[in-house]
Amino acid sequence: MRAYDIILKKRNGEKLSKEEIYFFVHGYTRGDIPDYQMAAFLMAVYFRGMDEEEVANLTLAMVDSGDKVDLSAISGIKVDKHSTGGVGDKTTLVLAPLVASVGVPVAKMSGRGLGHTGGTLDKLESISGFNIALSPEQFIKQVNDIGIAVIGQTAKLSPADGKMYALRDVTATVDSLPLIASSIMSKKIAGGAEAIVLDVKTGSGAFMKDLEGSIKLAETMVKIGERVGRNTVAVISEMGEPLGYAIGNSLEVKEAIATLKGEGPEDLTELCLTLGGYMVYLAGKADDYETGKNLLKDALESGKAYAKLKEFVKSQGGDVHQIDNPSLLPKAARVYELLADETGFVTKVDALKIGLGAMYLGAGRATKEEKIDHSVGVILKKKVGDVVKKGEVLAKLHYNDKKKLEDAQKIVFAAFKIDSRPPQKAPFIKAVVTAKGVERYV
Amino acid sequence: MRAYDIILKKRNGEKLSKEEIYFFVHGYTRGDIPDYQMAAFLMAVYFRGMDEEEVANLTLAMVDSGDKVDLSAISGIKVDKHSTGGVGDKTTLVLAPLVASVGVPVAKMSGRGLGHTGGTLDKLESISGFNIALSPEQFIKQVNDIGIAVIGQTAKLSPADGKMYALRDVTATVDSLPLIASSIMSKKIAGGAEAIVLDVKTGSGAFMKDLEGSIKLAETMVKIGERVGRNTVAVISEMGEPLGYAIGNSLEVKEAIATLKGEGPEDLTELCLTLGGYMVYLAGKADDYETGKNLLKDALESGKAYAKLKEFVKSQGGDVHQIDNPSLLPKAARVYELLADETGFVTKVDALKIGLGAMYLGAGRATKEEKIDHSVGVILKKKVGDVVKKGEVLAKLHYNDKKKLEDAQKIVFAAFKIDSRPPQKAPFIKAVVTAKGVERYV
Repeated sequence: MRAYDIILKKRNGEKLSKEEIYFFVHGYTRGDIPDYQMAAFLMAVYFRGMDEEEVANLTLAMVDSGDKVDLSAISGIKVDKHSTGGVGDKTTLVLAPLVASVGVPVAKMSGRGLGHTGGTLDKLESISGFNIALSPEQFIKQVNDIGIAVIGQTAKLSPADGKMYALRDVTATVDSLPLIASSIMSKKIAGGAEAIVLDVKTGSGAFMKDLEGSIKLAETMVKIGERVGRNTVAVISEMGEPLGYAIGNSLEVKEAIATLKGEGPEDLTELCLTLGGYMVYLAGKADDYETGKNLLKDALESGKAYAKLKEFVKSQGGDVHQIDNPSLLPKAARVYELLADETGFVTKVDALKIGLGAMYLGAGRATKEEKIDHSVGVILKKKVGDVVKKGEVLAKLHYNDKKKLEDAQKIVFAAFKIDSRPPQKAPFIKAVVTAKGVERYV
Repeated sequence: MRAYDIILKKRNGEKLSKEEIYFFVHGYTRGDIPDYQMAAFLMAVYFRGMDEEEVANLTLAMVDSGDKVDLSAISGIKVDKHSTGGVGDKTTLVLAPLVASVGVPVAKMSGRGLGHTGGTLDKLESISGFNIALSPEQFIKQVNDIGIAVIGQTAKLSPADGKMYALRDVTATVDSLPLIASSIMSKKIAGGAEAIVLDVKTGSGAFMKDLEGSIKLAETMVKIGERVGRNTVAVISEMGEPLGYAIGNSLEVKEAIATLKGEGPEDLTELCLTLGGYMVYLAGKADDYETGKNLLKDALESGKAYAKLKEFVKSQGGDVHQIDNPSLLPKAARVYELLADETGFVTKVDALKIGLGAMYLGAGRATKEEKIDHSVGVILKKKVGDVVKKGEVLAKLHYNDKKKLEDAQKIVFAAFKIDSRPPQKAPFIKAVVTAKGVERYV
C-alpha cells in the first residue's frame, strides 16, 4: 500500500477501504506519511467527501491511534455530551450536576478553550480551590462515590486527530463534514463514551452557520455512532445570539448556579433539559426522552440538582461558599454600561461579535500561552425580541483594564441591531437527529 | 498576506490576484511556505482550476522565481519547441538541424529523460564524443556561427516549478491542466524563448490520453503565450502507437539521420514538417506556415538538413563518421525477433507497453541515478494498419542482457493487437491550436 495511491483514489472520488484508511491515518500518526501527503489527502476529502462507512472507519482509525479510557470500573451506561461550541456556552456546568443528580454517571474529561471565553475547565477554575487534576483512580472513585467528576484530559486520546486537526487548521481543510464528524466522535469514543449526546449549534456564532449544514453534520455523527455501536443523539439549537445572558468565566458560573436552582435563562434551561433528557434516556435511567426530561425538571425544582453541584464542587476541592454566595466569585474592578442609542426592537445580538468583545476584555485566549482573566466578561441586558428604549442598558461590560474596554465596547455595540419592527419568532431548538431520522421544529 | 487565506480562497473557487499568486509561489520557493500548505493549494487548484489570467500569472511567478536565459546576443526571433513526451520521440533530433538549415536560430537546452527511453541529451550522447556541456559563451557563439547548439540545462530555470513538480509527483496533483501548462510554459520562457511551438501528444502512450483533454491543455498553453507576449502554436498528434519505428537511444539517432535524409517514417516526417513549418513561420523566416513547411521539404530533399546535422554534431565534438555510417553507432550484442502468433491486421501497438519494454531492456531509467544503455531498444516491424502473417516478425528487440529480454519480450508482445478486420483510419495530426482557435483534422 502506498500513500500516493490512497490520495489519488480519494481525489478521483473512489471509496477507500478500511485498510487504506487505517494505513493512511496510522502512517501519518507515526510520522511515516509526511504532512504534505496528509494535506493533499485532506483537501481531496474536502472536495470528494466520504461515505458513511468511510467516515466510521476514519473515526475508528483515529480512536485506535492512541490510548482509550477504560471506564468499566464505573457501573452503568456512560453517556458523554459534546458541544460544537458557541458563545456563552455554560451547558456542561449545568448539565453535568443536573444529570448526575438523577443517577446518570458523569465521568467527564474536558478541555481548555481557545477563543472567546475559556473552556469548561477554565470556567470551573473560577471557583477557588477547584482541582481539575485528579488521578485516574481518584476520578473513577469520585464518580462511583458521588456520580460525577470533571477533569482535564490526561490520556493521549486520538493523537491522529490532534495531529490532523493542527494540519487542517493551516491548510483550510477544517470545515469538511467527514473530518469534523470523525474528529469529534473519535475523541468521545476514545474517552470511553458508550452513548453520546451532541449539542450542535447553528447560526452566526456557531461553527456551522446554516441549519442544513448543521443537520448534515449531526446526521453524519449519528450515523458514525450507529456504525460503531454508540447510541448517539444530536440536538440542534440556535447560536445566532449568545446562550443565556452571561459571557465570561465567573459570570457564566454564576448563571449556571442560578440555572441549577431553576432560575436560569429560558434558552439555557431548555437546552439543558433537552440534552439532559436524552442523556438520561440513553443511560437507561428513563424509558423515553420525555420521562428523562421530567425527571430533570423535578431535580431543578426540588433542589436536587443544585445540591449535586455543591457536592461536586466540594469533592474537587472548590470553595462551596462561592456557590452559596456567588458574589464571592472573582469580580472585575469596574462595570461599563453600554447604552442603546435608539428605541425599538432588538432584532440581532451577534454571538460572534459578543464573543470577540469578551475575548478583548480578557475572558478568552487567542493563543495557548495566554492567561485568562476569570472575572471579566459581558452581561447582556437585552436579547433578540426585547424592546429597548434609547438610553437603556444593552449590556454590561465587566472589565479590569480600561484600554481593553475600548476595543470591546465597539464590537459589543456593533453586535446589536435595533429595528422599528419586531423580529420573526423562531424556535430555539431547531431539530433533533436520532438514528431514526431528523425531527425539525422549524 | 497569509498562505492560509490564499489556500482558502482557491478552495472556495475564488480568483487569485497576481500578488497572491506571486506571494504563494515565491514564498514556497524560498521555503517560507511549507510543503503541506503548497500540497493543499495544489489539490485545491486540481479541483477548482484557474482562469486564463491566473494561469498566466502562475507561469510568470514561476519564471521570476529563478534565472532567465539571455539569448539577446543571438540575432533573430528565438523559437523553442516543447514536446509533452511520448514513446519513440526523436523529434528534436530531426527538428533542430532541420529548421536551423533554413536559418531559424536553434539555441536549445534539453533534459535527460526519466522513463521509457532517455531524453534528447541521452540520445545525442549515443554519438561518441558528443559534448553537451558547452559554456554559455560557447553555446551563444556556436548558434551565431552555425545556427544551432543543444546543451544540458545549466541555469536554475524556474526553481519554483522544480520544487512544485516534485511535490505534485507525490501528492497526486500532476494531472491538472493549469499546473501542467504553467510548468511547461515557465521553463520555455525562462529558457529565453520568444515564440513557442508545442508538440502535444495524445493517446495511450501520452500524458494526456484523450483528444479533448489534449486540446484543452494546448489551448491553455497557447493562451498563456498570448498573455505573456510569446506567440505560441500547438500541434496535437497521435501517440497511441510509438512515433516512427525505433525506440531506444542509438536506434532513434539512426532513424533521425534517415529522416534528415528524407528517408524517414511517414509519421515522424509529417510531424517534424508540421512543427517545423510553424517554427519557421514564428521565427519570421516565412510569411506563413505553408511556405515554412515547403522550405523544410526542400531542405530534406536537397540534403541541406542532413548537412546541418553533420555540422552540428562536428561542432559539438561528435564523431561524424557515425552519422555517415550509422552502423558505427552503439550496437546491442544480440537481436531477438518477436514473431506474430496469428494472421490479420495490426489494430494496436500500445506505445506505453513498447516504452516499458524498451526500458526493461535498459534504454531508459526508472530513477535519476540509473545508467542508460545507449545500444538497446525496440525496432517495430509492423505498425497499426499493417497486415501480418503468423510467424512474421512484429518487432526486433536489441538486447545485451538475456534476463532483461525476458521481461521486455512479454510486454512488447502484449502491446500488439491483431484482428481479422482492419483498424479505422484516423489522421496522425489531430488538431492545431493557435491564438486564432482550434483547427481539427478528425
